[in-house]
Formats: sequence, C-alpha cells, structure tokens
Amino acid sequence: MKVPCFRALITVTVLGVCHSVHALWPMPRNLETGTTLVKLAPTFDIHVQGISQVPQDLLDAISRTKTRLGSDKLQRLVVGRGSVDKGSLAHAPSLSKLVLSVTGSKTVQSIMHEATKDIASRSEGYSLSLPSTNGGTATITANSSLGLFRGLTTFEQLFYDDGTGVTYAYQAPVTIKNDSPAYPWRGFMLDTARNFFAVSDIKRTLDAMRMVKMSQFHWHVVDSQSFPLTIPGFPELTQKGAYSADEIYSSADIQVIVTYAGTRGIDVLVEIDTPGHTAVISTSHPEHIACAQASPWESFANEPPAGQLRLASAATANFTASIIKNIAHTLPSTMFSTGGDELNVNCYTQDAQTQADLKASGKTLEQALDAFTQTTHGTLKAIGKTPVVWEEMALEHQVTLSNETIVMVWISSQNAAAVTAKGLRLVHGPSDFFYLDCGAGEWIGNDSAGNSWCDPFKSWQKAYTFDPLASLSAAEIPLVLGGQQLLWTEQSSPQNLDSIAWPRAAASAEIFWTGSKLPDGTAINVVNALPRLHDLRFRMVQRGINAIALQPQWCALRDGSCNLDS
Amino acid sequence: MKVPCFRALITVTVLGVCHSVHALWPMPRNLETGTTLVKLAPTFDIHVQGISQVPQDLLDAISRTKTRLGSDKLQRLVVGRGSVDKGSLAHAPSLSKLVLSVTGSKTVQSIMHEATKDIASRSEGYSLSLPSTNGGTATITANSSLGLFRGLTTFEQLFYDDGTGVTYAYQAPVTIKNDSPAYPWRGFMLDTARNFFAVSDIKRTLDAMRMVKMSQFHWHVVDSQSFPLTIPGFPELTQKGAYSADEIYSSADIQVIVTYAGTRGIDVLVEIDTPGHTAVISTSHPEHIACAQASPWESFANEPPAGQLRLASAATANFTASIIKNIAHTLPSTMFSTGGDELNVNCYTQDAQTQADLKASGKTLEQALDAFTQTTHGTLKAIGKTPVVWEEMALEHQVTLSNETIVMVWISSQNAAAVTAKGLRLVHGPSDFFYLDCGAGEWIGNDSAGNSWCDPFKSWQKAYTFDPLASLSAAEIPLVLGGQQLLWTEQSSPQNLDSIAWPRAAASAEIFWTGSKLPDGTAINVVNALPRLHDLRFRMVQRGINAIALQPQWCALRDGSCNLDS
Repeated sequence: MKVPCFRALITVTVLGVCHSVHALWPMPRNLETGTTLVKLAPTFDIHVQGISQVPQDLLDAISRTKTRLGSDKLQRLVVGRGSVDKGSLAHAPSLSKLVLSVTGSKTVQSIMHEATKDIASRSEGYSLSLPSTNGGTATITANSSLGLFRGLTTFEQLFYDDGTGVTYAYQAPVTIKNDSPAYPWRGFMLDTARNFFAVSDIKRTLDAMRMVKMSQFHWHVVDSQSFPLTIPGFPELTQKGAYSADEIYSSADIQVIVTYAGTRGIDVLVEIDTPGHTAVISTSHPEHIACAQASPWESFANEPPAGQLRLASAATANFTASIIKNIAHTLPSTMFSTGGDELNVNCYTQDAQTQADLKASGKTLEQALDAFTQTTHGTLKAIGKTPVVWEEMALEHQVTLSNETIVMVWISSQNAAAVTAKGLRLVHGPSDFFYLDCGAGEWIGNDSAGNSWCDPFKSWQKAYTFDPLASLSAAEIPLVLGGQQLLWTEQSSPQNLDSIAWPRAAASAEIFWTGSKLPDGTAINVVNALPRLHDLRFRMVQRGINAIALQPQWCALRDGSCNLDS
Repeated sequence: MKVPCFRALITVTVLGVCHSVHALWPMPRNLETGTTLVKLAPTFDIHVQGISQVPQDLLDAISRTKTRLGSDKLQRLVVGRGSVDKGSLAHAPSLSKLVLSVTGSKTVQSIMHEATKDIASRSEGYSLSLPSTNGGTATITANSSLGLFRGLTTFEQLFYDDGTGVTYAYQAPVTIKNDSPAYPWRGFMLDTARNFFAVSDIKRTLDAMRMVKMSQFHWHVVDSQSFPLTIPGFPELTQKGAYSADEIYSSADIQVIVTYAGTRGIDVLVEIDTPGHTAVISTSHPEHIACAQASPWESFANEPPAGQLRLASAATANFTASIIKNIAHTLPSTMFSTGGDELNVNCYTQDAQTQADLKASGKTLEQALDAFTQTTHGTLKAIGKTPVVWEEMALEHQVTLSNETIVMVWISSQNAAAVTAKGLRLVHGPSDFFYLDCGAGEWIGNDSAGNSWCDPFKSWQKAYTFDPLASLSAAEIPLVLGGQQLLWTEQSSPQNLDSIAWPRAAASAEIFWTGSKLPDGTAINVVNALPRLHDLRFRMVQRGINAIALQPQWCALRDGSCNLDS
C-alpha cells in the first residue's frame, strides 16, 4: 500500500508539510506546484490589465472572488485543520495582487456573451501563476473574459483559512499553463415539473455548478405534471398548468435565471419536451392532447398522467412551434431542446382524432412525427437555434435530423456509438452512470416492494468511472460534446436538491474538463479524486450549498486511511 | 380498481366533499369522523380544567400548539388546495375552545416526568372530541400530562388553512376514544460520531419525532471516529477525541437536549458503545485501547479506525464503568445503552496486554467479556438504570444479561425470535427494514464499484411493511417494546439529516403506534398510508423540517392516481 499523507504526518506534522493533495476540482489539465505557504497581503487586490473596457459581469465576478477569499473560511482537511499551518504562516511571504489580462485583443466581450456562444466556439482556457515570492503578483491570462472567469474559479480553490482569519495558499508556486476543458458541455439537468423549485434553488444550483466550471444548465422545465414556464402569448399554459400561482417562472424570473447563469459562465438549455410528456397542456388546450389522463396510465405513458401532443395535427404542430418560438427567442442560448423521449404509440392508436388526421394526410405515425419535428425544428432554425433531442429521436424513430442536431444519450451508455454512427453530435447523460435519482425506492403508490427502475444508486465513484469515448472510433470522438448528470424529481424537492446532487454531480464536471489523465499522466481515478472531492464538498458547505459528507469526518481528515488495504 | 377520491371530485368538487383521507399520522387506533367543516373562532383558546397545578411544560406545549394552529398554513392536498373549501367555510360553524382535562387525580406530573418514566409504565393514551356545532368545545382527556400532549399532537393535525388565513378542520365531528400506542418504544436513532450534528439539528429532529408521537430518541453519540460527549470528570475524552472544540456536546448542551426532548414527550437513550467502537478513546487513554488504529483496519474492525477497550483489564473495565456512571446519572432516562456490537476477536488475539490479562486471570475472552459487562451493567443498576445492548451481546456471546436488559435487534429481522426465546425484551431496528443509510453507495475510499453493505435503499414502503410480531409466539409478544429507524452517518451530515430521515422514519412511528390494523379493521397498508404520509411531509416542510417529496406534486394532490392499476 502506498503510504498516505496522514501517516507521514506522524513524523513531519511539525513542519506542516503534507502536500500530496492538490485540492482543485476539476483538476487542471496542466499543473505544477511547490510547497511554500503564501498569504494574502492585507492590501491584496485583483486588477485587470490591458483591457479597454472591462465587462461589468467580469468586474462583478472579481468582486465576488474577493469576497469569497475572505468569507470561505475553509480550513485545510488535515488533522489539526488550519492550526497546522499557523507556525509557518508567521513568516510566510505575502501575495500583493492578482492581475488578469487578455492575450491579443484589448476588446473583450462579457462572460455571458462568451458563455452563451455556440457550444463549439467557446473559449474557456486560461493560464495561472501564483508566485512564492514576498510581495509577488499572481496572474491569470486568457483569450476571453470566460477564460479569465474560469481562472478566477481555480484561484479561489487555492486558498484556505488558518482558523484566525489569515487567508493563504499552501502549494506556491503554482503554475497552470493553458488549462482548458476536454469537452465544452459539462452540465447538470434539473426537472422542475415533477416538483417545483424556486428561483433561489436554481441560483444556488448554478452557484454549485460554477464552482466546478460547469458550462451548461439543462432546464427540463415542464412535463406532464406541471407547466411552470411562462410562454409569451400563452399565459393560459401556466395559469391552468402550474401547480399554483406561486409555482410559476415569470418572464422576469426566466431572465434572472439565464442572466445569473450566463454571468457565471453557464449557458441555459431550456427544454420543452415534445410530443410526449405534455399531458398538462390538456388543462388549457385539450384540443391538442391525445389520451389526456387516460386510464390505466400504464397503457398510455411511462408515468402518470398520460397525454401527448397530437403530432399528426397540423394545428397542434403549429401551436407547438409557436410556444417554442415564443420562449426560445427570449433566451440567449443558441440551443433549445424539443425533447422527444418515451413516445407512447398506443396513445395515438387509441386517439380517434390522430387516426383521422393520419388518414386524411395519408401518413404513417412515423411520417407524422417526422413532419411534426420538421415543423418545430424548422422554427428553431429560423430563429438561429440549434435543436437538441433525446436519443429516441435519433435511434428509435424515422425522423430526419439535421446534422447540427445534438442528441442526448440517456437510456444506456451503450447507445452512444449508435448516435455517432449517424454522424450526430451527442451529450452523455446515461442513466446507468449519471442519473442522480436512481436507487431511492419506487415512487408509484401501491408497489411496496419496488425499487427504482434504474437501481442501484449511482454513486459519485460510479459516475466518475464513466468513459466518454468507450466504443467510439477516432473519427467519432469530435462528435462527443461532453456530458451531464441529471436530476429527475419524482422523489426530489427543494428539501433535498443540494444533498442529492452535491458533491456527486461534480464527478462528471471533472471527467469532462480534465479528460482521462491527471497532470502527472496517470489515469484519473477515485483514489486521487476522493480527497479533492472532500475539499470541494467542505467548501460548498461553507458557501451555503448543502453538499453531503462522503465519509466520516475522520476519513476526510486522513487521506487514504479509509481505503481498503487489500 | 377502486375509484380514488380525486376522480369523484370531478363531480362533487362544488360541495367540497372529499373525505376519504384522514390525514393523521400515526393513525389513531380508534377514529370516527364526519364531513362538516369547522373553523377556529377568532377567540379560540385552549384551557386546562380540573388540574390544581398545571405543569409548566404542558403550558408551554399548549402555547406551541396555539402558535402552530396559526402558523402551519398547510392547505389540504387536493386539486385547488385550500380554495376548494372557501365557499363552505363562509357559513361553517366555529370552534370556541379546546379543553384539556385529566381523569382521576387533580395532581399531574410534568410531560418530561411522564415521558422519562420506565418504558413499561408510561401513560400516553388520550381521548379527543371535536364537535361540529357552532360555538362548540373540543376536548382532550387523558390520565397524564403525556396523554394530553399526545392528544394535542393529534388535534394539530386536524387543522388546515384555506389560503386566506382561516384555520379549519374538515372532518368534524371527530371522535377518538382511548387512542394509545400499540408499543411504548417508537424511536429514531442518530449517530453523531461519524459526522457531527449541532444541537439545533438534534432539536429539529426531536420536533419531527414529536409530530409523529415518537417516544425514544436513541443517541449513538460516540464511536471510534469521534467522542463529542462531555463526560463529567473526563474532559480529556472530548478535548482529544472530538473533531474540534466546536464539535462537542457540553454538559449544558446535553441537558438542553434531554429537556427539549422530555418536554416534548421523548425520552433520550444515550449510548456509549463498548467494548468495540471505541478507537477514539486511544487519543486520550491509549492504555485502555487494544489495536488502536491498527493496520490493515479490515483485520481489526468493521470500519476504520480499529480500536477496542481492553475488556480483560480490570482497570479498563473500571474506567469504562466510571465514564458510564458519570454521564448516566446526569440523564433523566431510566435506560442507558452499553452497545456491544461488532466485537473483533482478532484485535484481542493480537493485543499482548489483553493476552497477558487473560492469562493472569485464567479467563477466556468470552469470560472476560462477561466480567466486563457485569462491571458496566452493575454500575448502571446501582444507579437505577436499565441496560440496553445490541443483539450480539444476547445472541453471539457468552454474556449473562439480567432479565430487564433490553436488546436491540439490528443485523436481521430474522433474529428477533432468538432474543425473545431467551426471555429478553427487544427493540426492532433491523437493517433489512429500518436502516436509513442503506443504498447510498460504498463509502470506503477505493472501491469504485461498491454499493452499501445493506443495499438496497430501505424505502418508506419497505419499512412500513415490517411486521413486529413475525415468527413470535403469543407468549413472546409482551417482550416486544417497539422499534425504531436508524441513521448511521458515514455518508450523512447536517446537510442531509432531514432529507434522508423524513418522512421515511415516520413509517415505524405508525407501525408501533397504530399496530397492525386501521380503525376500520383493515390491515395497515401502503395505499392507505401514502396520502397521509404526503400530508405529514407537507406539514413538516411548513414547520421547517426538510422532509422530501414522495411523489410528483401532481400525485400528492390526487390520491390514488399514481398507483398501478394492474
């Protein structure tokens, strides 16, 4: 067994040197560190250099970083916590400032502008230097405000508190050259339809995502159970479809969310799942919904209540396109999801109107689905948006998807290769690795012995061992945009949002930023990850995110001592 | 399929009659209800009648009930929520007051006095009447302050808010005759050693327990990882054994907790697990601990770190007895747990001192364990305390336990009969039904594929189907004191305490109060339980307890509609 740091501590604790853990998450792709403690000078400040007009959201981000450097108050996770460094800190060199600068152009766009660009053209890379000299200057350089922002996030993670208010880094000098993500899509999906989440819950989630450099918030905002999303021109959808007047995202709320996200380097992908998962629309537009609340629901839907858009009806297709258009054009993202999972054929077979519509048009159901999709996707493309769909649209149906369409793989990690084989881009969200809701028992009411359909629980370790490139050819690799962990909320609510998601959902954030190898060339692995994930979790708690303990605190303070020896 | 209430609502919603759900938890053992809405009169008050001196904790409880009747603001879980009753409420009769009285003696003891009596002699029964007449008087009668307190808890659950501040019951008249628990032990166990929980977290847990009439808080306060419990005369145990100076229960904290519990009808069973699970004592008393932090831990303990009290040493036995005595005599409970689970024999085989002690005394390890137990239990008995042990002490070791000893069954529900066969009283805490921590993945650091040892997750439905009397003879039934759900906290912390426990842990509270049958004579079952558990969960959320959603809100508002039809 490799001797872990805590055992070495028995002999070297007086020197305060226990530097085997680099508590950064996600691990930069390039990292060199020393063993010198450097504290922030009382006059420490953050400056921007060589930019003619600094974007307001970058100035705000700098301000938040300065606040957090003082307010995190995170003590190192070693036996003795911050006190182990007190002696060394008395004579430690001070860091006088951090300077941010952009390479090349003196004109920079806002973080939000950069974060909401096309997924293929975002610039998130940065370099960082933290010297060990007294009175030294740290630097972050990047090609964009978004890169500087990612660098600030790394910078914050380097600092600890000694228990008496001294803020310091303990691994100076730190040099990170050209850190940049392996994949542009590092996401988290939240379902706000099965149960409602307040804007404050979503903001807190975005804060957690920001801490691990996530780039995409996938907002599964409506579903068969409720319609909390205000659509301009269609107020009846929320008036009749939201759980209550207090459980609606107003147009102002939506702008607050996309702006809060964007200024934190996160693009928001809004999804209106179609044509399935739309039962609730029957409360305001029964004319557009087949098999609305049909019984037994098991015959018409994967979960109650049943109800799907009448895809063979031109009126329904146009109605759907109008909804999508009216909301999509208000959103900064270049992407919009039309969903497309779990279509129930029997619902349409039993629906007289759909059968009549099919007969009138001479189309099969699959042909009607294709026409429906051309209508909704055509609308999106007309306003410059790229469509995103669940995997069934690519793999199970006879739908023509344009080349730029992004496909979300969810049913099984085994299905990724079939998507790339069609030349389509994909996002990994496999239920067998990334579903955060699995393993909490059956939620259907009268099944006392049942477990969740995707048992067992997907531990952070399980998620962390996901291989984004498994069974893909070299030519298919560029089609992988990244991945995300997902929270479906049949059994979740604001009360357990943080605890079910964090720090677990950070696993994929590292896989898709760091890639397959650590800076020293070894493959990423749970043994290296665990102490860093502890650190992230404790820092999240300091920031008001209710991330849960991964182990007894005894283990968190003693890296390696709760591993199996055999 | 039985037509659920929400479907009937389609036709009768205008009458506001949807009364199939009696949203009480635990269900009283006797219940008659009507269909009349009764609102609280503006002058509504709660009076105590015929008691010469009303105990202060009963007065305080009444005050809290009055506050909650106004502050709960829980709207009924039906489509339309509180608004469905608005029309009927305008002309509804008003309840003028609630009168509490004690049958027999005019002298009553405090709730805390009654709640901390010997487990076999507590009086929790009560009768309740809520009339449907205008200007009527509701009554709660009982033999003790504790019975009145249980009645108040039921009374609170009868009231809802219509969304405009009108507080009302909707099932008057309500008559409950001689409701009393099927079992006296209805508990919840919290481990505060693997991870620390603040006094406020414990108070909030006691609040939740109180809502479901739980009677026992089992506080597994110390373990091998940390020793947060202040023991008078042994300050070094916490000074060296707590995670930090901020993670200690002071003597004052302990009194706050037992008083907060007692005045809410809850007895606190404190456990100091011995002789295993004591590694942390080596930080202050290495002389008493065998195999302290021995490596590999797998050879010496069920989880890290290894370390057990040197049970063959008379000095260690006396030290242990002193600790137990010094804390136990400060506690109101008549019970104290000496633990006794997961003893590791190899630890003692490898410990030179234990081997020398055994040789000197001529005892086998089992004989030494018996002597050790006689010392600790003798000390408890000398101060009037009943010992509580984990099942291994009764089933796996050659230890003589006195008849009054209470045994906790945890390894398997199958082991209960073996305990009663020995004539010992038991508390059900089987890991296969009642462990709240199962199913969250492996927490040992380097086991990426592992699941928890007690997979899968124990859903509320699973817990609810536990049969306390399975495979017991009629003669053995009186030996069953009740049961409890347990939270071991290797993967829990204050951040998920509420969400992992509630409303799940309420399942056993109903099993052990209501018993096997509902008031109408049918067997208790998850279909009847679900809407009531939803109601409890929503009420907990209103009171600041982060109980999680059991289903989409759509289902919670439509009883039966998320059941399988087939």
